[in-house]
Amino acid sequence: MKLGVDYYPEQWPADRWATDAQMMAELGLTYVRLGEFAWSLLEPADGQFDFSWLERAMTILANENLKLIIGTPTAAPPPWLTHQVDIVQRNVDGLPWSPGSRRHACANNPDYRRYSQRIVTELLQRLGDHPAVAGWQIDNEFGCHATGRCYCDHCRAAFQVWLQTRYGSLDRLNQAWGTVFWSATYTEWAQIPLPRTAPAQHNPSLLLDFRRFASDSWVAYQRLQIDLVRRWSPNRPITHNYLGGNEDTCEIDYFDLAADLDFVSWDNYPQGSAGPHHVALNHDMMRGFKGRPYWVMEQQPGVVNWHPYNRPVPPHLVRLWTYQGLGHGAEAVVYFRWRAARYGQEQYHAGLLRQDGSLTGSYREVAHFLRDLAAVPPISRRPAKVAILIDYADWWALQIDPHQHDFSYLKVVTSIYQDLWAAGINVDVIRRSDSIDGYKVVIVPSPNLIDAAQALRWQQFVEQGGRLLVTFRAFVKEQSNIWSDQPLPAGIDTLLGVQVEDYLGLPPDMRGAARNASGGLSFPYWRWAELLKPTTAQPLLFYNQFYWRDQVAATQNKVGQGVAVYAGCWFEHLLPQTLWQALGLDELAVPFSLPNDVEAIAIDLADGGEGVLLLNHNAEPKTVHLHRPGVSLLLNLPPTTLITLQPRDVAILRYE
Amino acid sequence: MKLGVDYYPEQWPADRWATDAQMMAELGLTYVRLGEFAWSLLEPADGQFDFSWLERAMTILANENLKLIIGTPTAAPPPWLTHQVDIVQRNVDGLPWSPGSRRHACANNPDYRRYSQRIVTELLQRLGDHPAVAGWQIDNEFGCHATGRCYCDHCRAAFQVWLQTRYGSLDRLNQAWGTVFWSATYTEWAQIPLPRTAPAQHNPSLLLDFRRFASDSWVAYQRLQIDLVRRWSPNRPITHNYLGGNEDTCEIDYFDLAADLDFVSWDNYPQGSAGPHHVALNHDMMRGFKGRPYWVMEQQPGVVNWHPYNRPVPPHLVRLWTYQGLGHGAEAVVYFRWRAARYGQEQYHAGLLRQDGSLTGSYREVAHFLRDLAAVPPISRRPAKVAILIDYADWWALQIDPHQHDFSYLKVVTSIYQDLWAAGINVDVIRRSDSIDGYKVVIVPSPNLIDAAQALRWQQFVEQGGRLLVTFRAFVKEQSNIWSDQPLPAGIDTLLGVQVEDYLGLPPDMRGAARNASGGLSFPYWRWAELLKPTTAQPLLFYNQFYWRDQVAATQNKVGQGVAVYAGCWFEHLLPQTLWQALGLDELAVPFSLPNDVEAIAIDLADGGEGVLLLNHNAEPKTVHLHRPGVSLLLNLPPTTLITLQPRDVAILRYE
Amino acid sequence: MKLGVDYYPEQWPADRWATDAQMMAELGLTYVRLGEFAWSLLEPADGQFDFSWLERAMTILANENLKLIIGTPTAAPPPWLTHQVDIVQRNVDGLPWSPGSRRHACANNPDYRRYSQRIVTELLQRLGDHPAVAGWQIDNEFGCHATGRCYCDHCRAAFQVWLQTRYGSLDRLNQAWGTVFWSATYTEWAQIPLPRTAPAQHNPSLLLDFRRFASDSWVAYQRLQIDLVRRWSPNRPITHNYLGGNEDTCEIDYFDLAADLDFVSWDNYPQGSAGPHHVALNHDMMRGFKGRPYWVMEQQPGVVNWHPYNRPVPPHLVRLWTYQGLGHGAEAVVYFRWRAARYGQEQYHAGLLRQDGSLTGSYREVAHFLRDLAAVPPISRRPAKVAILIDYADWWALQIDPHQHDFSYLKVVTSIYQDLWAAGINVDVIRRSDSIDGYKVVIVPSPNLIDAAQALRWQQFVEQGGRLLVTFRAFVKEQSNIWSDQPLPAGIDTLLGVQVEDYLGLPPDMRGAARNASGGLSFPYWRWAELLKPTTAQPLLFYNQFYWRDQVAATQNKVGQGVAVYAGCWFEHLLPQTLWQALGLDELAVPFSLPNDVEAIAIDLADGGEGVLLLNHNAEPKTVHLHRPGVSLLLNLPPTTLITLQPRDVAILRYE
Repeated sequence: MKLGVDYYPEQWPADRWATDAQMMAELGLTYVRLGEFAWSLLEPADGQFDFSWLERAMTILANENLKLIIGTPTAAPPPWLTHQVDIVQRNVDGLPWSPGSRRHACANNPDYRRYSQRIVTELLQRLGDHPAVAGWQIDNEFGCHATGRCYCDHCRAAFQVWLQTRYGSLDRLNQAWGTVFWSATYTEWAQIPLPRTAPAQHNPSLLLDFRRFASDSWVAYQRLQIDLVRRWSPNRPITHNYLGGNEDTCEIDYFDLAADLDFVSWDNYPQGSAGPHHVALNHDMMRGFKGRPYWVMEQQPGVVNWHPYNRPVPPHLVRLWTYQGLGHGAEAVVYFRWRAARYGQEQYHAGLLRQDGSLTGSYREVAHFLRDLAAVPPISRRPAKVAILIDYADWWALQIDPHQHDFSYLKVVTSIYQDLWAAGINVDVIRRSDSIDGYKVVIVPSPNLIDAAQALRWQQFVEQGGRLLVTFRAFVKEQSNIWSDQPLPAGIDTLLGVQVEDYLGLPPDMRGAARNASGGLSFPYWRWAELLKPTTAQPLLFYNQFYWRDQVAATQNKVGQGVAVYAGCWFEHLLPQTLWQALGLDELAVPFSLPNDVEAIAIDLADGGEGVLLLNHNAEPKTVHLHRPGVSLLLNLPPTTLITLQPRDVAILRYE
Repeated sequence: MKLGVDYYPEQWPADRWATDAQMMAELGLTYVRLGEFAWSLLEPADGQFDFSWLERAMTILANENLKLIIGTPTAAPPPWLTHQVDIVQRNVDGLPWSPGSRRHACANNPDYRRYSQRIVTELLQRLGDHPAVAGWQIDNEFGCHATGRCYCDHCRAAFQVWLQTRYGSLDRLNQAWGTVFWSATYTEWAQIPLPRTAPAQHNPSLLLDFRRFASDSWVAYQRLQIDLVRRWSPNRPITHNYLGGNEDTCEIDYFDLAADLDFVSWDNYPQGSAGPHHVALNHDMMRGFKGRPYWVMEQQPGVVNWHPYNRPVPPHLVRLWTYQGLGHGAEAVVYFRWRAARYGQEQYHAGLLRQDGSLTGSYREVAHFLRDLAAVPPISRRPAKVAILIDYADWWALQIDPHQHDFSYLKVVTSIYQDLWAAGINVDVIRRSDSIDGYKVVIVPSPNLIDAAQALRWQQFVEQGGRLLVTFRAFVKEQSNIWSDQPLPAGIDTLLGVQVEDYLGLPPDMRGAARNASGGLSFPYWRWAELLKPTTAQPLLFYNQFYWRDQVAATQNKVGQGVAVYAGCWFEHLLPQTLWQALGLDELAVPFSLPNDVEAIAIDLADGGEGVLLLNHNAEPKTVHLHRPGVSLLLNLPPTTLITLQPRDVAILRYE
Repeated sequence: MKLGVDYYPEQWPADRWATDAQMMAELGLTYVRLGEFAWSLLEPADGQFDFSWLERAMTILANENLKLIIGTPTAAPPPWLTHQVDIVQRNVDGLPWSPGSRRHACANNPDYRRYSQRIVTELLQRLGDHPAVAGWQIDNEFGCHATGRCYCDHCRAAFQVWLQTRYGSLDRLNQAWGTVFWSATYTEWAQIPLPRTAPAQHNPSLLLDFRRFASDSWVAYQRLQIDLVRRWSPNRPITHNYLGGNEDTCEIDYFDLAADLDFVSWDNYPQGSAGPHHVALNHDMMRGFKGRPYWVMEQQPGVVNWHPYNRPVPPHLVRLWTYQGLGHGAEAVVYFRWRAARYGQEQYHAGLLRQDGSLTGSYREVAHFLRDLAAVPPISRRPAKVAILIDYADWWALQIDPHQHDFSYLKVVTSIYQDLWAAGINVDVIRRSDSIDGYKVVIVPSPNLIDAAQALRWQQFVEQGGRLLVTFRAFVKEQSNIWSDQPLPAGIDTLLGVQVEDYLGLPPDMRGAARNASGGLSFPYWRWAELLKPTTAQPLLFYNQFYWRDQVAATQNKVGQGVAVYAGCWFEHLLPQTLWQALGLDELAVPFSLPNDVEAIAIDLADGGEGVLLLNHNAEPKTVHLHRPGVSLLLNLPPTTLITLQPRDVAILRYE
């Protein structure tokens, strides 16, 4: 794994650049990302370009053998542009966003697209074959600040065209959306509104397609630029820096966005996440979006500036976060940013250097990590045998109609992931429509939308010995977000051997438990419960409370060589022991007990050995008892079964 | 009482209609409501009408002897209309609502009114004399989704005209509103603004008149349609389906709206209410709006979809709710809806059938109720001897200036009602201006606006032996919402024998109690307290705490043969024992003790007997000890004084 | 000190005016403020003026020897004006405010300025030399209802001009603002936006200058009127009624606003403040804005109407508040208002008379105060030896980027002030740039913006024996709100003998304590902590917890004859004992122990004696043990060392 930094030469005197470059090289960094917010300097006036300063900076960096990732500067259009042309997004009330920050431009705005193409073309023509350019980053954090969906008239027109392409005729659209409901039958494409603020909710079918359209808009906008890079800077890999997965950062389908990229990268700010398992999930999602190694393009280097409370970052965390990237398959980790900003909105954001140029503790942690890495053989994450299948359309459909206010698709995914993570199981997080060949266990969290082809593929997987888990709210809606007219889960009830009698959104005051057949084990659940009627399946768990006491909560259906498990309720730990056993997960877990928030990642060593990477995410020391002796590669000690990790420290173990 | 369902033939294949009709008839239903969201199908293009499908559906339903209520479809204008004409409301910031849901059109928009008249006329000309039509529902839920008040320029012009009619001259308006305050004297009608968002509050007199105007606008809009029905479908009764009474659903004066109707109906979704007493209050309000029996036009049949948390609906509740309607005088209960929707915004709303056509438990509860009903003689609610007098202008005035954030006119009314309800007292809820002849006890909750004629009528009522209770914040303001220049309660202080020295809005941390003269009884109060100075009245209760300790909290004034009681503070139970006795309420209560949330409704049996309907709203069994033996008509048992009600079960008792 | 009332003759029948005037005079009042909301009556139509009614009222009041403060009526433009000309402000989304309340006009709107000048000129020409006019109040409560910042196009143009004046060239502006950040380089003045709602935060340098500009706009608008008064009513003192200092009422720099005034006045509504120390701070700030005595132009006389909960006002409070004004140097206290309003938005606001004309308890408390005052010799507040230095630009910079959500400049100031207040220390609150000659102790709360000249002045103050305290977040940013490139606190680190290693915003769950060198004393802190590296300073306090345990929290640096203390964290009491001693504050405190919320103000008596004014802000009696005998001037008792104050009562003590 390589390290790098994000650098803004334009924010510092030109006579400082050489010092910075030299310090970066001395620290042992490989990559520098730059350029992605420099439009107003690269094109100081309409059609007048100045790449000289950037080229000078690149040369100075290249002289230190630093490799460069150049960001196209379209995330922040210059004032002269927003002043002379209306390129800004409209919010859900139809009001224009003000310029003055960033990401205010609309992906479907023809002027913004035209000006974007021109600045990117000019940039590429000038610097596309610069030898130090190791790759391109398209724009910056699409969708950040909730800008993934725009409600302007350009978007309205584009949405109508997009729908024409999707449905072909208004008859088919009216049918697919069920516009007979509330008198919404469309007789001209131009009648179809954007879902601006209305007295009541919009049609959920329109809402889902609007989300698909908005996501596609950014994918298409990215493709505009990718096409230019392919032409003018061929053979340079292309990436985009993704946001971490949160309930409010899912406006763009990252699988679709990855399709046109060479590799995925992401901006990893662990503070603000739900915990280290959530960061781990993000890493695995990023690897899954493209099905190959990825980068961390921005790694939090200390305190940030955008939370209501920006918590202090204790020592050792930056090194620990870097190790976590290593363990999950990051090819590079790039710290944001080299030196803290003196100007603008992020002055309270840390860098490896302070504003006054002095070194921070994080700088020293980076150096520490690089010393570590030089001392151990190359390691790689062991391929996963468990896959979680996710889908943005399911996510969106459940956001549009959560029915229970706390219902969150991401929380379902995270809860499943967390149970696997806590057992040290390496997991792939892939697309619902992806191939699942080669996995032993496949988990499909709440696949709300029906897909017959996928159901068939999963059937075959199970028949051939696979273990499948599907959770509640499965196969309820057709792809256009209308309810099936078949018993639920529609079209997969045969595979699962169960039908859903009733679905219950549980308010916070209703929490229950479900027991196994013997009554010896009992597992709490909340938020969602379905009353199950097994057809061919065997009941695994039964409800304990309320008027649905004794009804079935979870089942397993033996099909061919495998088993298909259905979880009808949201267990607080979504993989309770009974389901864990039904899925045979014990054989995939690390064979020793893990303290809370100690992460274990199974690794292969370049020299053929096997081992485990241990990350102590706690503020206290933790001791691990191994099942067999291992050598702690960062220490010079004999093999042992007892490893004590200091607070926020790591161990790379090779099994004897 | 008859039962029915709401049905949307347009949402199901035409070849299914006969099956549905047959199933409805077999279940024993009498009524079907339909058509109220079908505008875009009935007028698929501007001026092109298609009533054939609706007529076919009506014929199929009529063939099963089902009687039909047809809703005019104006609550959801079709997309072609909103696309070509601006008919949408403006919100309080002056921004247009988007179409795409419903209720976005403005009652004062001339185009909306014109298009409404045309579709209704065409509908009536085609189907107005259809033999199966048993009645008409005008539009659907006026004011739903907080659409009762619009801030568009049509409304502004109409408001100015409305004010001209009300005040005649600007001098009179300026005088009535006190526009000398904050330099708001109007010199042309056109200067008068709508109360769009301003830096500070608008003049409360303008606000109250704007509320009156907005309510009148919908009354007038309804009248537009009623006039057409009277002409084209004479002798068919006309209704509108009201919303249940909540603090946020009082934008339209339901007394005014009822004046033009033949009967009131309402949409009864008990989940979301404050409890069974609140539902009971709603039933009684609906009966009172027109002073005659009413319908439940939509009855919750299971889970709904619009709450943040949509709670599960336990078994037996749908039957229990139906009985509650029976006990309060509903002529019909119509379940919303026959079959759960596959399309649109309400897919998560239950029906008697599921989306896949299978029967729900609610379906069976309806069948159960009908079996019950067939086995007992007709019953009717015994006429009330207690009246609560309410008024929308009081409600609005207290919303505009609550002074204490939690103050709610509806909560005052509900608190009074709840105490009577818990004692099994049949109550009428009528208009403040209505005749009160024939009642023994009359309660006027917080009549904020002064009305001398009413005060005189109440005086006569008391003189002739009536028992009157008036609560705090009484007779403070003139009808234009300006403060009286007389001592409070202005113009009714003589009848009550008391004056208000000071009024105190109590923040949540200030709660006290008031004691009776002997000090033996003490009753907690909150939110509001007035310091009373009796003139001719006798003090009943005295404050216990704070700097107003020992001052008078409640009084009674003996006048003629009766008594006038004044409650100066908001007791947590607004009818504490001392006031209860002063009003002689014991003689009107059921003569046995009622467990919590067991509702008792005094009934007359068609064969001349007397009895009581008992409704157990609890999730546990409850036992009632009668004062004399009764026969439980739903069971075949000898007379008894001991009745045990199962959870959510009912008993119809005939006294021996 | 003199007393007065705010009076609205236009709200009462003309034949009542003489009665009111007579009652005012009999009560002993000196001043009447009037006229400030009468524009629509003074100019009933465009260019038609009617001052006759006002003159009649003035004559009637003058006949009772009442002196008049006339308010210019521009805070509430008449409906005819807003109807015919667009003078309204735009909110942060660019939407116009509705007229109908007040303060909706924009200070930079040329029409509003023109109409304002005309009505004020006419008013002055007619009444400017009226013998009863004792002074002028310009407008009313600039900035009330968060109207200090407008986002209209007039403001945009004016802002661009303002920036041109400030920076001279765009190069200098771009440099000063660091517009290289996020591609915000401006190439024409017209490109600079107002900070309307954008997807992310605006550039904090733009935000700070916009706040400066908005404040300057109101100062300039006030000057428009002042110039007219100086011309047409010379020698009459001019004031403006300020709002009390809250985190949301700092839109206008009150030092700047005071520069053009003859004296400051303010509207004192203690309910809504953080407590009596906060009211005391407001009094001292008002005295400091102009550096001379001030007025209370509106004094709360009982319950108010604008809070969500408007708490009851217990007896004696109005008298107590009046005494507090006396103690802090108010020249006059004017009660708002004479009689409670029957009309408009403030009907629930108390007056000295009720709406029905009857007298309130507050009326009697005013009479009580006047009787008191007549019985004692004139007293005056003893000059302060402690100054707190404040600055609006610091306040704004920390609001723009609080970094920690609860961080509030005003709370820092208030916390410091409260500790001094609780010790009975008279304090001046003056401008950061003011001279500090003559003080013994100077405290500079969180001076976020760097000012080298001030640092030098403070250095000289310390060298000459002064004691200086500077708190955290000091000297971080240049005046344009960009971060220094020097070690923090930049440019004052030599004087303080300390540098800041790291700054930590502490979330609510992180609270710690700091101990003194011996460990014997420990003081809790929250919200903010800096890790200090003393250079020449001596550590005073050390952190106890977290990863920064044992690092330095506070220091003192002996320089010349004095000492410079730095507090690196926000102590819950910002002047813990160790700092208190370092600053030698004990010698300035009252030499006896003060119960909680008993305020002590050192006073000089007109006859040469010394004494103390004691105010018991508690609802319970409190006893004070004096260090030496004193005579309680309001009572006729021999000297004593034991004073018991009744609830909300006061004592004026003269030391023997």
